[in-house]
Amino acid sequence: MQVRKPTLLVDQEKCFQNMDRMLAKANKANGTFRPHFKTHFSAEIGDWYRSRDIRQCTVSSVDMAMYFKNHGWEDITIAFPYNPLQIEEMNELSQSIQLNILIESVESLEHAKKNIEGRIGYFIKTDVGYHRTGVDPRNETLIADLVNASTDQCSFRGFLAHAGHTYGCKDFESVKWIFDKSTKILSALKEKHGGIISYGDTPSCSMMDDLSAFDEIRPGNFIFYDWMQKNIGSCNVEDIAVCLAVPVVAKHADRNEIVVLGGAVHLSKDRVVETDVMRREQPCFGKMVQLTGQGWDNETLGHVSRLSQEHGIIKMADEHFAHVKVGDLIGILPVHSCLTADLQPKYISVTDGKRNDKMPKA
Amino acid sequence: MQVRKPTLLVDQEKCFQNMDRMLAKANKANGTFRPHFKTHFSAEIGDWYRSRDIRQCTVSSVDMAMYFKNHGWEDITIAFPYNPLQIEEMNELSQSIQLNILIESVESLEHAKKNIEGRIGYFIKTDVGYHRTGVDPRNETLIADLVNASTDQCSFRGFLAHAGHTYGCKDFESVKWIFDKSTKILSALKEKHGGIISYGDTPSCSMMDDLSAFDEIRPGNFIFYDWMQKNIGSCNVEDIAVCLAVPVVAKHADRNEIVVLGGAVHLSKDRVVETDVMRREQPCFGKMVQLTGQGWDNETLGHVSRLSQEHGIIKMADEHFAHVKVGDLIGILPVHSCLTADLQPKYISVTDGKRNDKMPKA
Repeated sequence: MQVRKPTLLVDQEKCFQNMDRMLAKANKANGTFRPHFKTHFSAEIGDWYRSRDIRQCTVSSVDMAMYFKNHGWEDITIAFPYNPLQIEEMNELSQSIQLNILIESVESLEHAKKNIEGRIGYFIKTDVGYHRTGVDPRNETLIADLVNASTDQCSFRGFLAHAGHTYGCKDFESVKWIFDKSTKILSALKEKHGGIISYGDTPSCSMMDDLSAFDEIRPGNFIFYDWMQKNIGSCNVEDIAVCLAVPVVAKHADRNEIVVLGGAVHLSKDRVVETDVMRREQPCFGKMVQLTGQGWDNETLGHVSRLSQEHGIIKMADEHFAHVKVGDLIGILPVHSCLTADLQPKYISVTDGKRNDKMPKA
Repeated sequence: MQVRKPTLLVDQEKCFQNMDRMLAKANKANGTFRPHFKTHFSAEIGDWYRSRDIRQCTVSSVDMAMYFKNHGWEDITIAFPYNPLQIEEMNELSQSIQLNILIESVESLEHAKKNIEGRIGYFIKTDVGYHRTGVDPRNETLIADLVNASTDQCSFRGFLAHAGHTYGCKDFESVKWIFDKSTKILSALKEKHGGIISYGDTPSCSMMDDLSAFDEIRPGNFIFYDWMQKNIGSCNVEDIAVCLAVPVVAKHADRNEIVVLGGAVHLSKDRVVETDVMRREQPCFGKMVQLTGQGWDNETLGHVSRLSQEHGIIKMADEHFAHVKVGDLIGILPVHSCLTADLQPKYISVTDGKRNDKMPKA
């Protein structure tokens, strides 16, 4: 591969392993697997799912639903609160595919019923403790109103939750605690009101063995994973399937730092906290690895501890620092692969060197 | 303007005010004004500079140099360490425009001299205390080697510095301290080795009255400014010339929070720390304002304190919360306008509602 500037490498084999592992878990649980496509934004990777007979997907925006509809996806859930301003596109979607939307207020549901001409399904977005958005499960009046408003044209599908607070966890026990709470909340709602229950964060779906309480799972990040997921315990470093190749442009021997062409516009400013070679806690915007002909090594050699628009700074131990020179390409395992992928217009497959374009921003 | 999803609004009048103020300062100092274009990424905004007879610009990547060359810019400095891997594009640039590159090692300079066929200029990238990259000004041997390597084809232009540590300042005094130190360092280098001295961060260039110590200034952010610059003291809130229009998609009365369609993929995860309506210190990813027919009000009504991929969460005081409803558009003044602009494929002018496309990612 001919890489001269920051370029997202994707290891197709690892993606398939991650996909097959999650699919097997969904099958074992007798549930629907509706992967979230907000991680990869890619019709090509959508086709990888299709090669495993997966025919339904989740997206996080109306634009993304349009993009995947145009690439042959006919059953899409927009897992983001209903945006009344994008009614035109939702109308178009409702008339050509099975579209599901998320509802959390009577006003939004009434708006959808009045303005969407095709048939759609709606999920009640349920807050299982993340407190980002969604209906409080104790709000029985609102829930009953939303369920009872179901019609043939705009029909209640069930309850949908994203337990995003697992992203703050550091171990199995805390993820399990959230998972158990969420299971209890959603199961009680299903028992009372019917419909299906749909659940979906990558830590829960990766770390819990038995997902049979749910009718549907919607993880997304697991196809790539990333350093944040590795820190939570969702994956091992060898499961991380994306790596940003970046050129080394400067070395500072007085402080064992290298400068790479790889900044906030390539990686995103999402971060975790890591201990550097001086045993100091530092922000980490990505972990450095060595590139090989067919991908990258899994041994990490340092991390990006400072990041400006185009510059990344990595402090290294003497034994590694000595071997890096200006003009080399190194790899960065992203902290948050969804945001890194969003910043890239394309990715290169390490298997065949092929360039794949992603969903364009419009 | 018909806005239905996150859209960057640009106030052209404010941009011209910001531009004219900086241009006047450069003229007063008898210096060259070579604005940095990494803030706006836009040929159209380049034309605004051209309407003021500005003919030289700064960019942060080889791709950006190619884009602005293709839009008629003939004198460009790539203010990023020389990347030997992009020699092909630099060769093309060197043969069609006046290209300046940054050098901080003998190896990179030798590589450029050997591989670039056209005539180019080089600046010695000088570390004035930011410690991101650049030559230590005390490294006299290296500096002399770099200066003496000048040839007709690859000629030494002078010393260039970016005092990015002003971005961590909170007041005039601390910016002035950095400015004075930098002036001293660069002036001493100029006196000893000749060439010009080029300086460029937005806080210094905005807050210091007298820039006459420098031969050239290269600020970029000032064309838009943003909330971070307002906090440093580089600008007032009314100088901020960009605002992200975002739809409100949910309200949570129990915690006075609204949810907007406006997340990390729209604003970036860059942040400052702000006090919220509960007087708690919280991360701030952008300040909420009200949109008007012709732009936005300058009174801030809250800030984005949590941000996921597509969701932004804003906690508001009762009196403001009561007036917002789902389906409204509100404005977000970005924390870091360069990164927000990078995430947008276009901007809409509040003056004439015209859509302008930006440099595409390739």
